[in-house]
Amino acid sequence: MRNTLFAAWREGRTRALEAALEQALPAASAAPASLHKAMRYGVLGGGKRIRPLLCLAAAEAAAGSGPLPEAMPLACAFEFLHCYSLIHDDLPALDNDDLRRGRPTCHRQFGEALAILAGDGLLTLAFAQLGDSALRPWTAQLLPSFAAAAGTPEGMLAGQAADIAASITAGISANSAADSPAAGRAGPSGAEISLATVTAIHRRKTGAVIRACLTLGGVVGGAKGKRLQVLESAGNDLGLAFQITDDVLDVTSDAATLGKSPGKDAAQNKLTYPALVGIGASLQQAQILADAALARLGETFEHAEPLLQLCRELARRTK
Amino acid sequence: MRNTLFAAWREGRTRALEAALEQALPAASAAPASLHKAMRYGVLGGGKRIRPLLCLAAAEAAAGSGPLPEAMPLACAFEFLHCYSLIHDDLPALDNDDLRRGRPTCHRQFGEALAILAGDGLLTLAFAQLGDSALRPWTAQLLPSFAAAAGTPEGMLAGQAADIAASITAGISANSAADSPAAGRAGPSGAEISLATVTAIHRRKTGAVIRACLTLGGVVGGAKGKRLQVLESAGNDLGLAFQITDDVLDVTSDAATLGKSPGKDAAQNKLTYPALVGIGASLQQAQILADAALARLGETFEHAEPLLQLCRELARRTK
Repeated sequence: MRNTLFAAWREGRTRALEAALEQALPAASAAPASLHKAMRYGVLGGGKRIRPLLCLAAAEAAAGSGPLPEAMPLACAFEFLHCYSLIHDDLPALDNDDLRRGRPTCHRQFGEALAILAGDGLLTLAFAQLGDSALRPWTAQLLPSFAAAAGTPEGMLAGQAADIAASITAGISANSAADSPAAGRAGPSGAEISLATVTAIHRRKTGAVIRACLTLGGVVGGAKGKRLQVLESAGNDLGLAFQITDDVLDVTSDAATLGKSPGKDAAQNKLTYPALVGIGASLQQAQILADAALARLGETFEHAEPLLQLCRELARRTK
Repeated sequence: MRNTLFAAWREGRTRALEAALEQALPAASAAPASLHKAMRYGVLGGGKRIRPLLCLAAAEAAAGSGPLPEAMPLACAFEFLHCYSLIHDDLPALDNDDLRRGRPTCHRQFGEALAILAGDGLLTLAFAQLGDSALRPWTAQLLPSFAAAAGTPEGMLAGQAADIAASITAGISANSAADSPAAGRAGPSGAEISLATVTAIHRRKTGAVIRACLTLGGVVGGAKGKRLQVLESAGNDLGLAFQITDDVLDVTSDAATLGKSPGKDAAQNKLTYPALVGIGASLQQAQILADAALARLGETFEHAEPLLQLCRELARRTK
């Protein structure tokens, strides 16, 4: 019964979200059409929409209500931000990936120049959402936190840059580990990089935006004081749990399930939880974090079932 | 006398601006240092600062006052936006340039991956400036216009994408024109692309942001109604004049003076004013546009000398 209700919630919110994303994107027919097609390709027709659903669920939990239309531009902002980061991270100079959401990556489809510009356009569009008239009462409050979660030194971009820097270091210390068939599980051999470093990278690379989905969604839903702190703390744990699960899936899953290339972390000497502590301990850690987040959210919010269910799924997801 | 006063104004505002830019950028010592060094390299130690100076001058003209500290984060936002666009435009997949502001371009200095991320970081930082506490009363009003000027379909990014698309078209229609020594002056032979197309690209590629410098600076200075319309209309003309002058300098100047590589437009089949109407007519057109802007600004604002002087310089600049 609980799952049926949640499935209906998810279906309704996803449908509304897809319509809002489509509406907020520049029309494919408008000039410059090449840019707009690349932007739309990078957003539409795929994606689990985890971040915007978390944002909508947090807003509704905070408000103790049904759909909050004013949270939708914020939810779109998080999805545009996510899609921009995927397009740029997939570029040849970065992760050099060919597959994303089960299709060719943006630069494989449209060329590098348009992929770079499309990412720039989606980042710009993400910020534009915060200025949407429905969000006006919160715009000045949301903007600094959104920018911090997206940027540096505490946000996604810092995590991405630190990830690259750490993988270069690990690559040097691991010598030929990447060429070994066992590299996927063994990780950088003799690496002196601690779990604390990986955790710090993960908290910025993925955690900061996930946390912002919960806190800023909460702000639009009217959360203040202690309730806002609970969303922040739960978002923090959930963000780390999410990235640990991502690390595990990169080792254990396949391209058809993931819709992106697995095994990338090992090939690129990325620092990951499974590389440092193994798959079992990683999954356990993700579960502990998610459980902690769930407990705090459940204690604090009375009408938070969709948010709680999303949290449960995040630690158990298989793609 | 007028020039002496203006020189003092420019020196004072530039000094304050450089300090504000330095302060707003993440510290080079903070992790991830590689990203922060690349971001700082892309902003500090060079640049004419035309956009932020226009923004400050417009704010002061609108307020009829001296320095307005609350306009400084907005001025920084425009410079960060400009620097991000230079870093990304210089990338191998786009203009593939080696020289900028008299130094190696960001990707030549730090590699492509960091240059892409540094550009992303500066775009994020530009938006973050709009959320600065000093700008709070205007944040919700500024954000949509700033995003529109930066993005697509009416802003800088649209102009950049249209420019690329048009140069591909021109390259096809020009056949081997780019190999001819006269290509720089003759432009795409047999091109059916009209001056209207070039004008439309220029208005977006450069004009939209220059116009926003004047209008949003004006907003912070308290301009409303007709006075705001004058800033918009003058910014529109000035933005086009600025890009026409840029086109001319690309043909007539040298790397030492420009601090960037000249002759790029012809080599890349870019659509330009001099290619279509010649250098003399281009300079004349830029002067007519700048004069029109000057006349309207002079009629409307009593204390606008720095703004007027900046406008005079823009149409006469040699770098």
